[in-house]
Amino acid sequence: MVKIKNKKRRIAILTGGGDCPGINAVIRAVTKKAILKRNMEVIGVLDGYEGLIHNRYRTLSFDDVSGILTLGGTILGTTNKANPFHYAIKKGDEIKFSDCSAVVLSNIEALKIECLVCVGGDGTLWISNRLHQLGVPIVGVPKTIDNDVRGTDITFGFDTAVSIATEGIDRIHTTAQSHHRIMMVEVMGRKAGWIALHAGIAGGGDVILIPEMPYQIDRIADYISQRRKTGRLFSIIVVAEGVMPMGGEAVVQKIVPDSAEQLRLGGISLVLGAKLEKLMELETRAVVLGHLQRGGTSTPFDRILATRLGSKAIDLIEEKKFGQMVSVKGNYLAAYPLEEVAKGPRLATADHEMIKAARAIGVCFGS
Amino acid sequence: MVKIKNKKRRIAILTGGGDCPGINAVIRAVTKKAILKRNMEVIGVLDGYEGLIHNRYRTLSFDDVSGILTLGGTILGTTNKANPFHYAIKKGDEIKFSDCSAVVLSNIEALKIECLVCVGGDGTLWISNRLHQLGVPIVGVPKTIDNDVRGTDITFGFDTAVSIATEGIDRIHTTAQSHHRIMMVEVMGRKAGWIALHAGIAGGGDVILIPEMPYQIDRIADYISQRRKTGRLFSIIVVAEGVMPMGGEAVVQKIVPDSAEQLRLGGISLVLGAKLEKLMELETRAVVLGHLQRGGTSTPFDRILATRLGSKAIDLIEEKKFGQMVSVKGNYLAAYPLEEVAKGPRLATADHEMIKAARAIGVCFGS
Amino acid sequence: MVKIKNKKRRIAILTGGGDCPGINAVIRAVTKKAILKRNMEVIGVLDGYEGLIHNRYRTLSFDDVSGILTLGGTILGTTNKANPFHYAIKKGDEIKFSDCSAVVLSNIEALKIECLVCVGGDGTLWISNRLHQLGVPIVGVPKTIDNDVRGTDITFGFDTAVSIATEGIDRIHTTAQSHHRIMMVEVMGRKAGWIALHAGIAGGGDVILIPEMPYQIDRIADYISQRRKTGRLFSIIVVAEGVMPMGGEAVVQKIVPDSAEQLRLGGISLVLGAKLEKLMELETRAVVLGHLQRGGTSTPFDRILATRLGSKAIDLIEEKKFGQMVSVKGNYLAAYPLEEVAKGPRLATADHEMIKAARAIGVCFGS
Amino acid sequence: MVKIKNKKRRIAILTGGGDCPGINAVIRAVTKKAILKRNMEVIGVLDGYEGLIHNRYRTLSFDDVSGILTLGGTILGTTNKANPFHYAIKKGDEIKFSDCSAVVLSNIEALKIECLVCVGGDGTLWISNRLHQLGVPIVGVPKTIDNDVRGTDITFGFDTAVSIATEGIDRIHTTAQSHHRIMMVEVMGRKAGWIALHAGIAGGGDVILIPEMPYQIDRIADYISQRRKTGRLFSIIVVAEGVMPMGGEAVVQKIVPDSAEQLRLGGISLVLGAKLEKLMELETRAVVLGHLQRGGTSTPFDRILATRLGSKAIDLIEEKKFGQMVSVKGNYLAAYPLEEVAKGPRLATADHEMIKAARAIGVCFGS
Repeated sequence: MVKIKNKKRRIAILTGGGDCPGINAVIRAVTKKAILKRNMEVIGVLDGYEGLIHNRYRTLSFDDVSGILTLGGTILGTTNKANPFHYAIKKGDEIKFSDCSAVVLSNIEALKIECLVCVGGDGTLWISNRLHQLGVPIVGVPKTIDNDVRGTDITFGFDTAVSIATEGIDRIHTTAQSHHRIMMVEVMGRKAGWIALHAGIAGGGDVILIPEMPYQIDRIADYISQRRKTGRLFSIIVVAEGVMPMGGEAVVQKIVPDSAEQLRLGGISLVLGAKLEKLMELETRAVVLGHLQRGGTSTPFDRILATRLGSKAIDLIEEKKFGQMVSVKGNYLAAYPLEEVAKGPRLATADHEMIKAARAIGVCFGS
Repeated sequence: MVKIKNKKRRIAILTGGGDCPGINAVIRAVTKKAILKRNMEVIGVLDGYEGLIHNRYRTLSFDDVSGILTLGGTILGTTNKANPFHYAIKKGDEIKFSDCSAVVLSNIEALKIECLVCVGGDGTLWISNRLHQLGVPIVGVPKTIDNDVRGTDITFGFDTAVSIATEGIDRIHTTAQSHHRIMMVEVMGRKAGWIALHAGIAGGGDVILIPEMPYQIDRIADYISQRRKTGRLFSIIVVAEGVMPMGGEAVVQKIVPDSAEQLRLGGISLVLGAKLEKLMELETRAVVLGHLQRGGTSTPFDRILATRLGSKAIDLIEEKKFGQMVSVKGNYLAAYPLEEVAKGPRLATADHEMIKAARAIGVCFGS
Repeated sequence: MVKIKNKKRRIAILTGGGDCPGINAVIRAVTKKAILKRNMEVIGVLDGYEGLIHNRYRTLSFDDVSGILTLGGTILGTTNKANPFHYAIKKGDEIKFSDCSAVVLSNIEALKIECLVCVGGDGTLWISNRLHQLGVPIVGVPKTIDNDVRGTDITFGFDTAVSIATEGIDRIHTTAQSHHRIMMVEVMGRKAGWIALHAGIAGGGDVILIPEMPYQIDRIADYISQRRKTGRLFSIIVVAEGVMPMGGEAVVQKIVPDSAEQLRLGGISLVLGAKLEKLMELETRAVVLGHLQRGGTSTPFDRILATRLGSKAIDLIEEKKFGQMVSVKGNYLAAYPLEEVAKGPRLATADHEMIKAARAIGVCFGS
Repeated sequence: MVKIKNKKRRIAILTGGGDCPGINAVIRAVTKKAILKRNMEVIGVLDGYEGLIHNRYRTLSFDDVSGILTLGGTILGTTNKANPFHYAIKKGDEIKFSDCSAVVLSNIEALKIECLVCVGGDGTLWISNRLHQLGVPIVGVPKTIDNDVRGTDITFGFDTAVSIATEGIDRIHTTAQSHHRIMMVEVMGRKAGWIALHAGIAGGGDVILIPEMPYQIDRIADYISQRRKTGRLFSIIVVAEGVMPMGGEAVVQKIVPDSAEQLRLGGISLVLGAKLEKLMELETRAVVLGHLQRGGTSTPFDRILATRLGSKAIDLIEEKKFGQMVSVKGNYLAAYPLEEVAKGPRLATADHEMIKAARAIGVCFGS
């Protein structure tokens, strides 16, 4: 438990949602700057909002955050299940949901903090916004490997995820080439295709499929046939996990009858692969990168971005800009209202410059 | 087509089976040494035995193999489907198998080569042995990421596969820790658990499951519970794709009724994860590394090993040691009869020094 | 030599100055888009302006640029010595400089191109601007690992250089810690300290020295002493090659009399290390990363950026925006006059947000 | 200070000499196995023999060594200056050396340990042997990135050093190629050329120079000229830091008069580069990898090797095989007398299989 001395300035920080490379760099920057420049105490909330519900904290000293810059994950722990407004409680075999935001508010009250820094993605920041509306002074820090938080050019964790995905595509390339196969690499992205788009371009993918642009399987098959006619006997398809054929799940069912189970188990790339294999009489193989994309040490890019955002969060506190999220605009940092963030993810559109650039060098988007 | 001039010494080289990091380093060493030291012509057979059936070759010059040392895959192409003694021919929707070894023998005859260098694993070398018994002068070079070729301490490709698998485990570690989860990393190895054993130790896996040692799920669950009691809330399980519970597939069926389909689609780690999640009421996640482990550039270790083996192959040809495979014995290279290689893979035993070393620092093997 | 057919649209591309990760991605994007979307011929000029002086070219086909995305260096060759306006010609032991721009203009004339795409940094783009003023239709693409081209938020190559430098610092960290040493890592940057600043933050450097901010050795010594008093027995100093003490070279001479030779041979970190070792009676070691920072495959970030810039270059040609450089502004691409670029490098200032962020978490800048 | 309870079995471990990737994996394996399997207490001696002279220790618990597997350096600290038989003591500006082995013996006595595990290279193990001869029960673990410890096939740290050096050569390759330069990469190895030999082969170096084979500059120049005549306009020279021209330092002085200073400051590659540049009128550049090669996380290969050696050390203690070093013989581990180890390093000979293999594919060794 955290001993609370009354006189000193005090803030708290929590990390919510899926883990993401760079979180520890944010915790380090927030804590170091708070201690060095503002003479604040910093309280770390454990396991996201779970810690606020059950009063689980630790104090963070300068030494606690030394040496964590390169460490993956979050030293505070996290969960993507603890929503104070819809909290699951298990009774026997039954699960009931209840609103325990009042508990959270009273626990925060007891902490006597100037501000709660919430590091999280869509879900976490949506909750942050609700808590802010209920009176909690909150500053948000956007965190997601998906890069789809509204109001910021880029989020930390994304560059690392793209790097890992690209390395995967690089490796798959030589196998595809040696075996004259169609290889599919499935990357994260349920709603937003940013990872697939970036890693697809960086890895020289031939086909890139993103959730924002439903694909037509015939277009993909035609494209691959064309490639084969010009002597390119292999193709690399980069698929975001959330892609759907034009027409949606009904079409999936139609092209591969047992697909529901397959979708659940192995990802959409299995459905797509099975169908292509049948259509084209070509060998296909799929690799689902999954959790590889979110763990481990972060790229230098993400470490720097996370450090800058953490530093900026302390500035917003000083300026009492609560209910705001630190955000990136070009080479500068800014504040952006959590209320706006809560309106939903930032998605790609079919006329995005990068999609046009990719098309111009011959990439197929399946539509 | 390859023009055949009659006076010059001539050898051919083929690469068969799954692709494997380091193959190009073998091709490069064989070709460079043959040209520089023996004044030989080198003929590259395309797509493994397929090329011998259909007379598809290219000559390999010094320049052709310059700069391929770091390249993944094989510049000659490969397939794991063309067995001359059991060759699939498609007629309409039907597939018939036939023995076309006579065609292969006559094609080899026509090439007028001193020796055929066969770079391959279990399957490829089994065929090499048969061809040698039918009179073809053959030297084998062991190639498999699985490290399970009989008669050699180690095979190239293995170090790269272990490195990639270990990097995967390293990344998964921080997610497991941050979310207090059980994370499973499934690596290649249908019969042999060498990749799982090595990557499991290198990545600090808590549980390592290999095909050679059927696991008991209760042992794993007990072990994880013990860990949790001492404050270690997460566990990493490294699983070879070919593992089975004690009792075999029948037990799989029993513990997860629909598992047949799951096994086919997503790998054994799904079955195991589902069962553990139910048994222990803990979150589990699985990552199947799959083809990531066999593509891309090779580690320096594998480049060196492949170069040395390729160089040694030329020596065996000079010494007319046909029907032999180049092999590693400690710091030295040797010849080993293909006849012995054909007897089956090299597997781990429960009293292997590495398994004992791993147990001694607390690793659980599920048995 | 390049055969010139008269009817087709035609452009040329050259790469000048030091090599830089991502150049081949630009060449690939320019060539693929020119061929696929504009039905242009693309001529590659060899070895920068040297090729224009001596008429050395190759045509670039779609196939020529397939598979070069991940390749370091430039397939066209480069040099940082061929300035057409001040070209060195050797006669015996003597070197004479002459203006051979007329030759270049006439050679370009003969090529019958719509536009010359010049991929280069400070020096190359300065020459491009002069050639444009003399009537050559030119589009520039900024290229430098130093990130100091005026008019663009970022240049490709920089992310790769920062990544390599950061990996170096990461490695040095454990040695510094184990031996309780002061370790210096010297990175590129003669005028601009961007690599040192970014890699210093990403690698958790304790001291960061950049050319824009002359250092005072006493400040550094004081800072290290303070660290030691709080139990931090080691320190990492990240130094840009172009740093100078306050007072300039005269001070260098004073603190280490023989330093002129040392500066030339081993870099400023030797001078600084020798002085600190004497001042503080502590072991110091220096690593000069040098050419490691500019070679090899590029990061995914740089591959994407280079691809986008190459694609945009074709758009500028279509819009006849000659005398312009493609540039990055936040998430968008734009055109920026070469005339402005020629005014000199983009440098950091002492109040830059990143410097303030670094100071806030305790980094010392030696001033 | 370490509290000493009398009843329990107890061992100590120290790490001496330069840091080396994998040391922490040894400490972890020794400690975990000692605690889990032998119910021993483990005492960590700080900063090598320095800790034994000044009684500086810490106890190592199971938790202390959890999570250090991937950590570079040594958690116990190290120094390459504390030789108990020749210990430097500073009085004013003067340094005096004295034999303080009696102090060390009495301090070890007081620790009441069964065995002292010494992890070190040449120097550290030489001291271990002397201490053993004076009655201290010692087990040695070979540790050096140079791979030159007598009596073992390989040492941990070497694979990591070779990997880093190879990555450096890979990066340098593209610069050499783009600029048509001679690039030199200087790697560690004062007496033994193993790193240069392995990294040179793995990185496709054209010239490899090792201390065991004095080079003749004319041979190198001839070789590079030959390459240029066949269109290979660049060359990569991999140089061990300890190489000398045939004829020794006198020749260095002769070819580059001011070389003494250069050798001290920038490494032999500067001398060699200056000479070649003059001889051949070609641009040369050198990169000195230096401390990059010994820091940071270790390769999976080294983590496994270090774990196995640490585990084996406990076995030797159990078998009371004191005065022995754990060693690698092919796929097995063995014991080897420290007395033999002390006889000097393991060097390459001109007829080593790897040197012959490298020559056979065209590598020049300068002799």
